Order: sequence, then structure tokens, then C-alpha cells
Amino acid sequence: MEQKPVCLVIGAGAGIGGNVGIRFARAGYHAVLCRRSDAEGLERLVETIKGEGGSASGFLLNAVKPGTIEDRVAAVEADIGPIQVAIYNLGAQIGDRSLADTSDKAFEMGWRLATFGLFRTARAVCPLMADRGSGTIIATSATAAMRGNKGQHSHAAAMGGRRMLCQSLNAEFGPKGVHVAHVVIDGAVDAPDTLGRMLGPEAFQQLRETRGMEHDGLLLPAEVAETYYHLSQQHRSAWTHEIDLRPFSALPWWNH
Amino acid sequence: MEQKPVCLVIGAGAGIGGNVGIRFARAGYHAVLCRRSDAEGLERLVETIKGEGGSASGFLLNAVKPGTIEDRVAAVEADIGPIQVAIYNLGAQIGDRSLADTSDKAFEMGWRLATFGLFRTARAVCPLMADRGSGTIIATSATAAMRGNKGQHSHAAAMGGRRMLCQSLNAEFGPKGVHVAHVVIDGAVDAPDTLGRMLGPEAFQQLRETRGMEHDGLLLPAEVAETYYHLSQQHRSAWTHEIDLRPFSALPWWNH
Amino acid sequence: MEQKPVCLVIGAGAGIGGNVGIRFARAGYHAVLCRRSDAEGLERLVETIKGEGGSASGFLLNAVKPGTIEDRVAAVEADIGPIQVAIYNLGAQIGDRSLADTSDKAFEMGWRLATFGLFRTARAVCPLMADRGSGTIIATSATAAMRGNKGQHSHAAAMGGRRMLCQSLNAEFGPKGVHVAHVVIDGAVDAPDTLGRMLGPEAFQQLRETRGMEHDGLLLPAEVAETYYHLSQQHRSAWTHEIDLRPFSALPWWNH
Amino acid sequence: MEQKPVCLVIGAGAGIGGNVGIRFARAGYHAVLCRRSDAEGLERLVETIKGEGGSASGFLLNAVKPGTIEDRVAAVEADIGPIQVAIYNLGAQIGDRSLADTSDKAFEMGWRLATFGLFRTARAVCPLMADRGSGTIIATSATAAMRGNKGQHSHAAAMGGRRMLCQSLNAEFGPKGVHVAHVVIDGAVDAPDTLGRMLGPEAFQQLRETRGMEHDGLLLPAEVAETYYHLSQQHRSAWTHEIDLRPFSALPWWNH
Repeated sequence: MEQKPVCLVIGAGAGIGGNVGIRFARAGYHAVLCRRSDAEGLERLVETIKGEGGSASGFLLNAVKPGTIEDRVAAVEADIGPIQVAIYNLGAQIGDRSLADTSDKAFEMGWRLATFGLFRTARAVCPLMADRGSGTIIATSATAAMRGNKGQHSHAAAMGGRRMLCQSLNAEFGPKGVHVAHVVIDGAVDAPDTLGRMLGPEAFQQLRETRGMEHDGLLLPAEVAETYYHLSQQHRSAWTHEIDLRPFSALPWWNH
Repeated sequence: MEQKPVCLVIGAGAGIGGNVGIRFARAGYHAVLCRRSDAEGLERLVETIKGEGGSASGFLLNAVKPGTIEDRVAAVEADIGPIQVAIYNLGAQIGDRSLADTSDKAFEMGWRLATFGLFRTARAVCPLMADRGSGTIIATSATAAMRGNKGQHSHAAAMGGRRMLCQSLNAEFGPKGVHVAHVVIDGAVDAPDTLGRMLGPEAFQQLRETRGMEHDGLLLPAEVAETYYHLSQQHRSAWTHEIDLRPFSALPWWNH
Repeated sequence: MEQKPVCLVIGAGAGIGGNVGIRFARAGYHAVLCRRSDAEGLERLVETIKGEGGSASGFLLNAVKPGTIEDRVAAVEADIGPIQVAIYNLGAQIGDRSLADTSDKAFEMGWRLATFGLFRTARAVCPLMADRGSGTIIATSATAAMRGNKGQHSHAAAMGGRRMLCQSLNAEFGPKGVHVAHVVIDGAVDAPDTLGRMLGPEAFQQLRETRGMEHDGLLLPAEVAETYYHLSQQHRSAWTHEIDLRPFSALPWWNH
Repeated sequence: MEQKPVCLVIGAGAGIGGNVGIRFARAGYHAVLCRRSDAEGLERLVETIKGEGGSASGFLLNAVKPGTIEDRVAAVEADIGPIQVAIYNLGAQIGDRSLADTSDKAFEMGWRLATFGLFRTARAVCPLMADRGSGTIIATSATAAMRGNKGQHSHAAAMGGRRMLCQSLNAEFGPKGVHVAHVVIDGAVDAPDTLGRMLGPEAFQQLRETRGMEHDGLLLPAEVAETYYHLSQQHRSAWTHEIDLRPFSALPWWNH
């Protein structure tokens, strides 16, 4: 395999993750795309990239199982090349649930996916990046990292933890040349296999038609990917740690 | 036992928790004091309160074991009386540790103590309070809930999760008459069995002598307890959700 | 005049300011009540306090005129006694206005009242308090200090400036024994001569009836005053810089 | 003059403003560069851009004088073309000054430059951009917009006002297609005519040598300009309102 820089995407579905993979592949990176299930969809994504002349590999990865992330990082470094950019794109949104309807298990699963998985990813890649004196870690985050809404007990706790973890990672690894960025996705993403699955096909289509004014009232993942790419290219004299993204027509989280 | 309102303190050591118990007992509450270990210290605390003419019970409670918090809440409601105020005072500070020195276990333990324990407490007491149309939950929190410093991977992630959880709890239960308050303890507390244990007796004594200008350069837990008591007495037309506390001589977390 | 500690209230109408004056007078302070107009209302407030056995003086004061605040502070110190607590309670809410409808003059007036007036007050009282090694300054603030909503160009800019000013004041004067507190009033106050005047009597009465569930869906100023008093009595080992207040039934500013 | 899109820069010195002008000119914009003084430096900047094959005009503009910004905007629209991007880059940092050393005049000047000037700019350009359904306003902001440090009374109040104003502008004009971005420059900029002037040539050179590890321990304005350009090119389905920028080696404002 050619010696391209590697962009590892954990959580590479048809939304932000997949589009970030496509964007980096276009820029000459080898995209390593990981997702929990849907081997076919993963294969299609890899083929899409290859069809454009890009380079990509796909792996199924269950991020809540011990050792999976760690092993994947080690295998990528050994078999493909040094990971220059790592995108942690696993969410933990389960829709609004009252406290009574939020089980211990659901609460813990939120943490495992959104907080602990990022911690494990960072523990695997940060030392490698620090040794090389460079690298970028971008965590896709959510409004729930900034404020806890009604029904968001599991999600908000998990994302609030993620945000503070990103700050601690940045405090330790920034001076070692590792760029850690926390991206607050503050709106609904036009992503069929997360939002679409949560809402169901009809409600999702309706939302697209209502809010997707000229197709841009929802966050378009391909456009989100442009900003991820920009972040990865920032010169180390002018790094961003936190940035928000929302459609022009959406109310920011702080307004109401 | 007389029909006093009950103040449950989870994490009742010699620092904020114990002093909050004493303060509420002085105001006519029955203090239910829970801590993980040191049965003798717990007994001394109960006796101190009784010696002042107050009313208190003490229980050992390992908050990371399943069912312990839930069972204690049920037993207190059955045997002592309705919990009017619940103080969640368990911290998860383990000192500064590099990412490499933060094990999966340490990271998970922070979450279990600081985030999940509060969630379980809330799930046990919130429905009872909501049914009664009143009640107060106060979470002792930390600077690490507001920003992640170097070496604070576990603590910051856990406290960041706690903060967002408090906001979600407030969003659901505030309108039902349950007052949820998040108290940011933004400084070192003059507490022998947490800070004292972490620093060791000599360093702790030195800190007291250096920073404890006229005994108030560290947060005095008895003074902190005054504000906890005030929060519990706020009229529901003017509730506080978030408040910070620090010594006059300390730099707030946002300055440097 | 007896040697009571003095509580100076700038902006003492029938809402928070007047009630804070009453609360401090009940606790043994001499309340110095200043407001721009309505000499009769001011006189009634002074008489109310005196009728309760308290001690108070009233002065008309146009805070946007140069020298007025400074002269009043000097006169109070000379004629009545040392100002121990200063409450800056002037708001600058002018209702929602589009940018086109916000004149240069309106924008500047917001700043003069909400930001510059506090700066001038601080410049007058901080040195006196720092010399005495103690004192409390409480600024009544608003949601608009935390986020800028649509139509709030003047108000949000003014209050955002006030908040940052409070932090700078605290950073300089906290270690000198002067307690600076920024109180975020995050909801509508049951105050006839500010909210009432803005809405008009009918809409105000309707709001009271709709939102004032059992008279506490609006912020009751007498209850707000309890927290102001508590802040002034906090021991310097455990000071609060920022605190929010809202009715139990209101959505906090960060939720929507 | 050719029909290039116009990028107006208010505050175009040798730091961020000038470099932003250069960056946009390289991308095909006509850069309109405004600064208060130093006609020669301004002319050099215009010539630099023209020498690269770019297009630029320069104007002296005293932003604190009434009508100056408004007239310049009108003249640019009439004589050069529609302003597509407006950069408000005037700062108000005057170094650390105690409250006693901060005169009324200094406090007011901070507001005039940092808050009121942006308001006036927005009032001039927002309606034009809203009519056209597109446009970008980027405000260069500072750490002092996020927290008030010791000695920053004037600067923090001014920048805190600027931040809230940006949020209100965004709330009104975002849905009309006008992108408002608030850029938090959280570190020292390698800018000879602001930081350099404030520190003096020797201290500035020393800072560059100490902090400018391989020339990137200070914010390099040409690199900052890359992010400004990216912001202006974001698709309206994924806009950023707030972003921070600092050198990799610098402590973010929230850490200490």
C-alpha cells in the first residue's frame, strides 16, 4: 500500500463519519473506516472512495468491547501506516427519555460509547502522535455537551464528559504537537442511518422536506467534513480547540 | 423517631458532607449520613450531632456497588421519613495523572462515583420528591466540571458528566417542584480526610499554614454548609441551579 | 444617626432593588435607596422600612449623569457611614428591537446604564472597601449577560460587558477582601415598575395570572432579596461570584 | 474596477487584519483595507497585494468618529461593489491597568472601539447583506470576551459586550443568510504594530525569541487568516458562530 497519511474514522456511517472519510481521501489520505455493523454499507463506502481514485480500508468494530479500538489502532499502524488524523465520531443519542425510562444499562451505554470509547482511542493514539510530534484528534460532539436538556440524562452526561475529556487531552498533548478539537454539532444532521433510523423513514423524509430548505436546513455531512478537514490542516501556531456548527436557519443552543 | 424532615448525605466525611449534616441537623432536620468506610468516624459524627441536641443516623454505604444507594433510599423512606434534601457529595479526584497513568479502571471508577452514582441517587429520590411536589437535590461539584485541566482525564470527564446530568435532572424535575442545584467547589477544601489524605499529613498541614490565611484561604466546610442550607431554603420562585464557591484569596477557574 | 452598616442600593424601585433594601434594613443595615425618579414612591419605600423599625434614606439619582454616583457615594460615606454592601441594580432592558430599530443612542444608553454605571460605582466604592479590608458589591444581572438573543443588541452587549467587568473587579478586589457577586436573574421578575411598565398594566396582570402559579411562577423580588442577603453574609472562605436565579417553573436560559 | 466580491477589513494593520486582506485578495476578493493611521503602512499593504496580482484599496478611517464607518460602507458599496465579507478587527487592549488607573475615558474608549464600532458596522452592512440573502461578518475577538482578568476592566467589559452583540446579530441575521462569526483569539499575536507597540521593540523581540518556538509559539497572523477564509467559505448548512484560536504551546484560557 502506498505511503499516504492515514485518517482513522471511528464511526463511519453514511453521515458525518463517512463523509469525513471521503473528504480526507480526496485530499490524499488513506481513510480507515470503522463502524459497528452493516458490512455492505461499509464496503460501498470504501468502493465509493476507490471509485474516485482514493484509498480506503473498512473494518467492522464494536467500540464497547474491550480491546477492539486498541487492537485496531495497533493493526492500522502496523499494516497501513502512521495515523495522522483520528476522528472519533460515535454518538450516543437515544432520543428523549424520562429519568424513569432511562435504565442503568442505557446510562452506562451512553458513557461507554461517548466518553470511554474516546478515552480508549486517545490512550491508543496519543502516545504515537506525541512521539511523532504531530497528529490531530477530532471528536464529533453535540449540543448535549454544552447543556443538559430534558430527557437527555444519558446523552448529556456522556457528552459533557466527552467535552471535559477533550480539554484534558488538549492540555496534556497540545504542547506535544497533538491537535485535539471538539466539534459541537448543534443541529440535526442529514444522516439517514443515525437521525433517519431514530425518526423512522417517513418522519425523516418529512423533516428533510420541512427543514431542509433548499437542502441546507439540516447539517449536510459533506459540508461538515470541509470544516473537519480545515481543522486538520490548521498550522500549529493557530489551532482551534472548540468550534460549533449549525445550519444558518437553526437556533443556536444558547438562544430560545 | 420524631417526624423531622430528612436530609440524606451521600459522602459524609469530615469535610463538606459531614458539615452539611451538622448544619441541617441544627436547623431541625434528621441527618442521614452515609460514607463508604470508617465506621468510627461516622459514629463520632452522629454523636457530635446528638451531643448538640440534633438528630442523626449513620450508615456505611459503598456507592459503586449495585443496589446500595437504591436500598438505602428505600430504607430511609420506610424507617425514618421522607427525604426532603439529598446531598450527593462523592468526589472522584485522584490527583493529576498523565493519560498513560490513567488506567481504564481508574477512568471507569471516576464515572461510577461521580456520574453514575448521582444518576442512581436521582432515580431513587426524584420520583418520591416529584410525587410530594417538593424536595432538594444538591450535587457537590468541582472546577473539573467546568474545564478539563492537564492530568484530570478521569476526574474532568466524570464531573463534566455530572454537570450536564444535573441540568437534565433540573429540566425534568424543576417544574415538578424538585430543586436541583449544582455547586462548583472551586478551590481546595480544608478537609482532612479527602484533601488531607491525598496530600499526606505534612503537605496538608503546610498548605493550611500557607494558604489558610487566618484559617480562610482554604474553603472551610462549615461555611460551605451555610450556602447548602440557604439553597435548600430558597423559595421556589427564586431557585438557584448553579453556584460557585471559593476562598476570597483564590483565583477563580477562569482567571490565570 | 446610629452607627449601622450601610447598604447602598442603586436602582431601588418596587422590584428587586426596593426589596433588597427592605431585607437588609430588617437585618440591621441602614438602607440608602437611590432611584432616578418617582420621589413619592421612594419616600413610601423609606417609610415602609421605618414603619418596620428599620433605618433608611432615599435619594433621587440620575446614574447616567457624570459625577452623580461618585458624589452620592462620597456623601453617604461622609454623612451616614461606611458602605458595607453596594447593590448595583440598574437594568437596561428596552424590549426586543430589531437592529434597524436600535439607534446609536439606545445602544449607548444601554451601555451607560448597565456597564459604565457599574464601573463608576466600583471606582467609587472599591478603594474604600479595599482600605477597610471588607465589603460586598452585588450586581443584578440578566440572562442577556450569558447569551445574546434576537432583538437584544443593546441589552445583551451592555450586560455581557457587565459580566466581564464583574470578573475583572473580582480578580482585583477579591484578594483585598471585597466580595463581588454577579447575580443572573434568569426569568421575569414580578416587578410592577419595570416589567409592568414595559408590558403595560393589562399584559402584566395577565402574565401574573398565567405564569404566577400560586404567585411564584415569576421571580418574587422579596425572595430574590433573601439570596442577596445570604451572599452578603458568606464567610470569605466560601464566596460565590456567580449565581443564577429563576422560578421553578421556568426554562433555564441554556435549555430550549 | 472589475466585479470582484469585496472583503472589507476594519482594522487592517500588519497583524491579523492585513493578513486577512492579503488572504482574501489571493482568493479573488477585492480587499478594502481601513485603518486609523499610518497612511504609508496602508499604502505598502495595498501595494503588496497588487504586487501579487491581487486587488485592494486602502482608506484611513477613525472608527470612533460618528459617521465614519457608515460613510465608508456606503462609499464602498457605491464605488467598488457589494461587500460580501466584513471583518471587524479593531481591538481595545490597553494592557493591564488597576481600576484606579482606568479612567472613565479609557473605559469608554474601549467600548467605542470594541463594542460600539462593531454595532455601527453591523447596522451599516447587515441590511445590505440581508437584502442580498448572503454575506459574512467576522469579528476578531479576544480571551477577554470569555473571562475578565485582573487589570482588564476596560478591555473585558468591551469584549464581553462584543461577544453578546455577535450572538444577537447572529440570532437576527443568520436566518436571513448573513453569517456572523465570533473568533476568540486566545493568545499573543505576532503582530508588530499592536502587541509590538504595546510591549516596545525589545520586549517584543524577546517574546518572539522565547515563545516563538520555530516561529509558531505566537499566533502567526497569516495562519489565522486561513481560518477566517475558511469561515467565509462555509456552506450555510454548516456555519460556525464561535471558534477559538491559539498556538499549540499556549495554555487555553480555561486552564491554569
